Order: sequence, then structure tokens, then C-alpha cells
Amino acid sequence: MEQSFINELKAIVGEQYTLTDRESLAVYGYDSTPEIESRPGAVLLPASTGEVVRIMRLCHGAGVSVTPRGSGTNLSGGSLSVNAGVVVQTSRMNRIIEIDEENLTATVEPGVVTSALHREVESRGLFYPPDPGSMNISTMGGNVAENSGGLRGLKYGVTADYVMGLETVLADGDILKSGGKAVKDVAGYAINPLLVSSEGTLGLFTGITVKLIPGPQVKVTMLAHFPALQDAALAVSAIIAARVIPATLEILDRVTIKCVEEYAHVGLPLDVDAVLLIEVDGHPAVTAEEAAAVAEICTRHRCSFFQTAQNADEALKLTAARRTALSALARLKPTTILEDATVPRSCIAPMLQVIQDSARKYNVTIGTFGHAGDGNLHPTCLTDERDKDEIARAHAAFSEIFDAAIGMGGTITGEHGVGLAKKKYLPRLVGESGIRVMRGIKIAFDPKGILNPCKMF
Amino acid sequence: MEQSFINELKAIVGEQYTLTDRESLAVYGYDSTPEIESRPGAVLLPASTGEVVRIMRLCHGAGVSVTPRGSGTNLSGGSLSVNAGVVVQTSRMNRIIEIDEENLTATVEPGVVTSALHREVESRGLFYPPDPGSMNISTMGGNVAENSGGLRGLKYGVTADYVMGLETVLADGDILKSGGKAVKDVAGYAINPLLVSSEGTLGLFTGITVKLIPGPQVKVTMLAHFPALQDAALAVSAIIAARVIPATLEILDRVTIKCVEEYAHVGLPLDVDAVLLIEVDGHPAVTAEEAAAVAEICTRHRCSFFQTAQNADEALKLTAARRTALSALARLKPTTILEDATVPRSCIAPMLQVIQDSARKYNVTIGTFGHAGDGNLHPTCLTDERDKDEIARAHAAFSEIFDAAIGMGGTITGEHGVGLAKKKYLPRLVGESGIRVMRGIKIAFDPKGILNPCKMF
Repeated sequence: MEQSFINELKAIVGEQYTLTDRESLAVYGYDSTPEIESRPGAVLLPASTGEVVRIMRLCHGAGVSVTPRGSGTNLSGGSLSVNAGVVVQTSRMNRIIEIDEENLTATVEPGVVTSALHREVESRGLFYPPDPGSMNISTMGGNVAENSGGLRGLKYGVTADYVMGLETVLADGDILKSGGKAVKDVAGYAINPLLVSSEGTLGLFTGITVKLIPGPQVKVTMLAHFPALQDAALAVSAIIAARVIPATLEILDRVTIKCVEEYAHVGLPLDVDAVLLIEVDGHPAVTAEEAAAVAEICTRHRCSFFQTAQNADEALKLTAARRTALSALARLKPTTILEDATVPRSCIAPMLQVIQDSARKYNVTIGTFGHAGDGNLHPTCLTDERDKDEIARAHAAFSEIFDAAIGMGGTITGEHGVGLAKKKYLPRLVGESGIRVMRGIKIAFDPKGILNPCKMF
Repeated sequence: MEQSFINELKAIVGEQYTLTDRESLAVYGYDSTPEIESRPGAVLLPASTGEVVRIMRLCHGAGVSVTPRGSGTNLSGGSLSVNAGVVVQTSRMNRIIEIDEENLTATVEPGVVTSALHREVESRGLFYPPDPGSMNISTMGGNVAENSGGLRGLKYGVTADYVMGLETVLADGDILKSGGKAVKDVAGYAINPLLVSSEGTLGLFTGITVKLIPGPQVKVTMLAHFPALQDAALAVSAIIAARVIPATLEILDRVTIKCVEEYAHVGLPLDVDAVLLIEVDGHPAVTAEEAAAVAEICTRHRCSFFQTAQNADEALKLTAARRTALSALARLKPTTILEDATVPRSCIAPMLQVIQDSARKYNVTIGTFGHAGDGNLHPTCLTDERDKDEIARAHAAFSEIFDAAIGMGGTITGEHGVGLAKKKYLPRLVGESGIRVMRGIKIAFDPKGILNPCKMF
């Protein structure tokens, strides 16, 4: 990147917030995606919408690519600059602007950390449900750009279900305001849902208004051990079929259970095929009935052990098993490929079978955990990116897994995004007309193609 | 329309399903929008996706415009052909293809009538919440194209919140499949929400998969009379602030009350400013608590009368007041202009004031009813389109009302769509960059501009 251009960037955000030293560029050359490294030309930390507008005007004029970035927890390479362009890091735009208790909305800047918003709204008896695994470091801007899910998605939905209003800086620096605090709005095309999950390719969010809901009064946390994986999967289907929609309905398979227990010593059994973590929440009378139904269904499906947390501490201990799953798996090998193949929930059992079969066929270690109730599994391959042969086999296994997911009416990514990592799989899912339409949408927002280029398609 | 072209159309859908007689074209020259008439060149009633594909290929090649149409209940001119093109009427594609009780989805053809789907899913203990006022005749295709709301939107959301999968025939006849039965999917741009509320400008739906939820166990229906309009509005805010989210929270103003009572004789008082219809539903224990809270709040806000329905018949009688509001108003004058200005719910009281002030200022009769809990009001002008002066004053009043809605952070349409009727207001709401982006999206889907042209922008 030329010094004169860097000087212009510095004039916008200030010298100390324009990072071009080797160490910074090396750090920002990674996000949380394995196997991909790509150093930016400069990293900017703007403090305001006005600065973002000026950055975009400058880069648009110069044809320099721009990649927005929150905390870099992206799992598909989405927060990496691919051609030594500018990374716009949002950590300084981290104000919670307003909690509107009358309209039940929160308005935040993009750099607000997700769990910080949770704490703020929960202190007022309100609830912002999306809780991605990385919520203690991930930012709201990133959550919106990726349409983040989380453990409460089954009952409460994902980020897209909560975004009401966006202020977005477009590729050319124009500001686009879409939606707002009105809960209904059909004026023109639905721009908000399009921007949500656009992975930084359509604009940079500078203001985000989300819907809040009244928080649940109580929560009941349960854990069930299943000697047979298929029984666990059938129990998931039976719970939904019984018209119970738990807030959380998560599964851990044998590989994951072993890793978690060795790492966190939470008392998981080493001789079962699967553990289900189930949380029901809401009104005390409802949760009591739902918890009883869940216990009955798990017993009927041959669980070997069923535990209901008696207090908040016990609940935390039970959920810890699931919350630490990724960290526990990641300890075993240098490289962790965390995927998020997703299927209709009725296909959980065959999908788990496909994952196990593919792992065996390609001789790779895959632990699976995830949002069973959503059909959103996280098959996680433990490998070493220096072992080119094993990496090739891992990708072959995942290619089969994605094809199987598509074949079952599912998708290649339930919550991690396409980014760079899953570009090649997208055409298999959406077809030629899907890609054509998406390219057209990209051009509508960013005809010069400077916003997070090379991502998605 | 040339006879040779008509013959080609007949070869696709059959002679009897190709309407070109004067009477048919006259009938299809209207939908439910006042003041707009526009006759199509031909009306086609295809029976399958394959026929829709062939129609689109033919029209695309010939540059003939195509407008999809369900039951013609559209309130913004959206189902009218504007340049004597082809209307594709979906009534023959009216099969409920599948109710999937394991995945909680229903898959239907576009011509399925909304209430027919309600009946089918409710017979299985399931629930499809969107219930637009026209649900007994409106079609699912139209509901999706317009993102229809309804009386249960406050708690349960609108059509967009339930669409999971779409099969869409694009302008050139290509089939685009988006989404499906997987509850989470972030692969590529969110195409479903974009197609929902695209008002027939991006494609024709031939298959629709919607989410179902378990039905509520019980429902409590309540009616409250308020001598003062502002008290009713404040009660609405107080109910939400008390963390109660009713399924239904509707308001009728004095003009509407009078019309309804004279028409339906349901026992409404003629000496109050407003009536609130409130329904809470769900688990018996929860609804009992919520109903008690609602009663307390209404009493505290000086309601003069509060009634709780003691059985289903009584409930039906109470809701009849709201369900007949539009018909009752429409009896008074030859022309009914039904609008749907929408504001953040905290602005219900000032918005009602603006509507009354504008009606007085322009000397027109406006009755207001609607979804108070959603901030989605239906100011309804009773007029006569032959009275050019009064019509001009009515439009002047609505122009002010829309500006006020925008000024309060609201929108020009909460559920009726832009169509032809509100085209001129859209730029005021979404700005230049909004219009530019929407035009770009239109081009991405329909570069030749043959799909429902002249609509929206």
C-alpha cells in the first residue's frame, strides 16, 4: 500500500488508529479459520460513522478493497482481507446507544460485544436471545454480518430474527438506513435481512437496532446420557413431535464427550455414544410440564442417566460441558476444522451416521456436537494443517458431508457463513440461478466490487 | 395483444384457462385498490410449475409483462397489469402438498387460500399464525408476495417470519429454489426474505414451505371501552411495558365503532373514543396471569367497561367487532381508502392525534382501526372517487399522515405493500440510496423489467 494513500487514511482516523506495522498486519492476517492467512495492507480503527464514510469514499475512489472486522472470530475467512486491502476494525465503535424499554429495542454501534449487550438488557428484565459460542468476544456487527446463531436458536431464532434497523455505509460511502423501530414494514424490498448475513460484502454497519423480548422467568437445565447415538437423535425428534420447543437442545457425541471430560472434568460418562443438553424456559408452570415431558421422552428412548439441575450452579456445570466442547476438541490437535452442516431436524440421525461413516472412510478424527434441535451440527475435524495428506482426506470427508446435507434438504452452513472457506460448495447448494442472482445483488450494492471481495461466490 | 401470441399462451395452459374475453379482462382490471383500473391483455390460469416456466419463457422472449395474482385482495394495485400484459392467476395451483409434522413445516402451492391452510394445520394441533384480514379469500402466494400481517402479528410476527423455502420462477423462466426445511441457513445472501414482500416484481412463487408452530392451548379474549382515545393508546404502551405480549392488541376509534355498531349490532358503545380488543393465548397458567394484568392496566387507564369472553361464542362476538371494521366502514361511502401507516408502538398516541388533525384540516372522514400493539394503524378514508375535490383532500391528508409516520421513525406501509398506490411515497422513506439499491436488485432478478413492471419504484 502506497505511503501517500496510508497518509490519507491517517488523516481520517488518526495516526494511532492506522496500523501498518508488520506485527499488526501479521495478527490481522488471521481470523478463527484454519488454513487461511492473508495480510491486509492497513488496519483502521474508526470511531464514528463519519469516519467510516470518509474511509469508504477514499477507498472507493482509489479502488482499494475494504473488509470489515469485529473480533476476528469468523470461522469461514470472512474477516480477512484477500488482496492486501484495508481492514476496518470496529472495536472503537462500541457504545450501547439506547435501550428503549417502551418499544423493546436496543440500538448499538457495531463494535459492542454480544455478551455486553446481554448483560445490559438482562439488568432491565429484557432479553436478547442470540448467543453464539463466541459471544464473550464476538461483536454485534459481526453477528449481524454473519447472522449468528447460538444455543438458544431452536426456540428463539437467530440474529436475523432480531435485527429491526440498520445504518449501513455502502461501498461508495453513501449511508443507507433500513428499517427502524416499527415492528412492521413492507415498504420496498426487505433490505435488512439481505444485509444480515451479507458477510461484509454489501456494506459496513455503523448502527444496529435489535428487537428485545421479555426474559423468561425460569429455566430448567437437563442432561441425558444415551448409550446409543441413534436413540439420542430419535429423542430429539420425539421432543419436537411432542410440541415441546426447548430453548436449547444440544448434542455431544462420543469423541466430543471424551475430550470435554478430559479437559473440563465435569463428570461426563466415557461409555456412552451421546449426551443431550436440554433447557426449557419461560413461565414456571410451562417449564415444569415441558421438563417432565422431556424426562419421559429421554427415558423412553433408553437414556442411561438423566439429571435435572437443582440450582443455577448445577445448571452452569451442565451447560459447561457444551460450552467447552470446542475448546476441549481444539486441544487435541494443532488444527481444528469446525463445520456447520445443517439438515432438517428429522434428518439428525442419518446425518450423524453420514459424519461417522465419512470419518471412518477417510480415516480422520471428527467429533460432533451442536444444535440438534435446529438440525445444525458441528462436525469438528481434529487434524494438523502441516499434514497435507490428512488435510486432503479431511476435506474429502467434509465434501461428502456437505453433499449429504444438501441431499437431505439441508445446507452447507447453518451459522458460520460461506466466506472463503465454503465458496466452492455454494453453487452445489443454490445452483446456477442462485449464484447469478447473488452476483446481481452484489453489483447492485457494490458495482466496483471493493467490499470484502472474493467472498461467498 | 396479438392473436398469434395468445395462441401460444393457449398452447401452454389450454384454451379454457386463457381468458381474453371482454368481461374477464374487465374483472381483472381491478383488485381491491380504489381509484385504479388497468385491464390486462390476457389472464392465464396455469396448473403447474412447468406451465409457469413456459409462460415466463414465452413472455420473456416476447418482452410481454407478467403480473402474478392470487385472489385480487391487494390494496396497493399490486395485482394489476399496468400495460395490458399477462396476468397469471394462481387459483388452479391450490394443493396443500405436505404437512410435515416432524419438521413442523407445511408445503403448499401458491393458490392455496390462507384459511384453508389454517384449518388443515389446526386439525393436527399445529398453528400457522399469519391471519390477514382477507384470509378467507387471500392466497398464500399473495401473502408471501406482500408479506401479509394480520391480527396475531404482535406476538407471532408476519408472513416473512414463517417462510422457510420457496420455489420461484424467475423472469426468464429459470427456477430458483431458496431455503427449505432446515431451520438455519446462512449460505449466501438471504433470498427468501427478499422474495417475500417483493410484490410480484422478482419472481412467481410455485412452491412455498412455511414454518408451523405448536398451537396455543387456550386463548382469552377481552374488550375494553375507553372514553378517551389517549388513554387507550397509553394502555397499549403500558401492556407492552408490563412485559405482556398479547397475540392480538387491536384498536377501533370512534368513527369505526359507530360504523361497526350500525352494521353488525355487536353491542359497542357509541359514546366512547376507543375500544381495545385484546387476546392473550398460550398455556392456561400464563394466559390467566396475562389476562389479569391486562384487566388491571385497562382499569388503571380509565376504561369505562371491560369484558372477558366466557366462552368461544362470546370471544367470536367480541372479535367480530374488529373483523367487520373494514366492511362496516366501506358501507358508508362508495370509495374506501384503507391505509396502513405504521409507527414504533410508543408513537401510537401521537399518530392517532395526527390522523384526527389531518382529517379535520382537510375536511375528510377518516375512521381508524388496526394493530395498535404493532404500531400498525389503518386510517380509512370514506370518500367517493367521483368527487375529485374530496379525493384530492383525502390524498393531501394521507400525505401528511405518511410524513408524520416517517418523522416518528415509522413507515408508509406496514402490511399492504407499495404497489402503484404508494410508489410516490417510497423515496421519502428509503431515500436516494435506498431506491438505487432496490432498482439494482430488480435488475439482478429481472433485467428486462417484465415482471410486474411499474410497481414499487
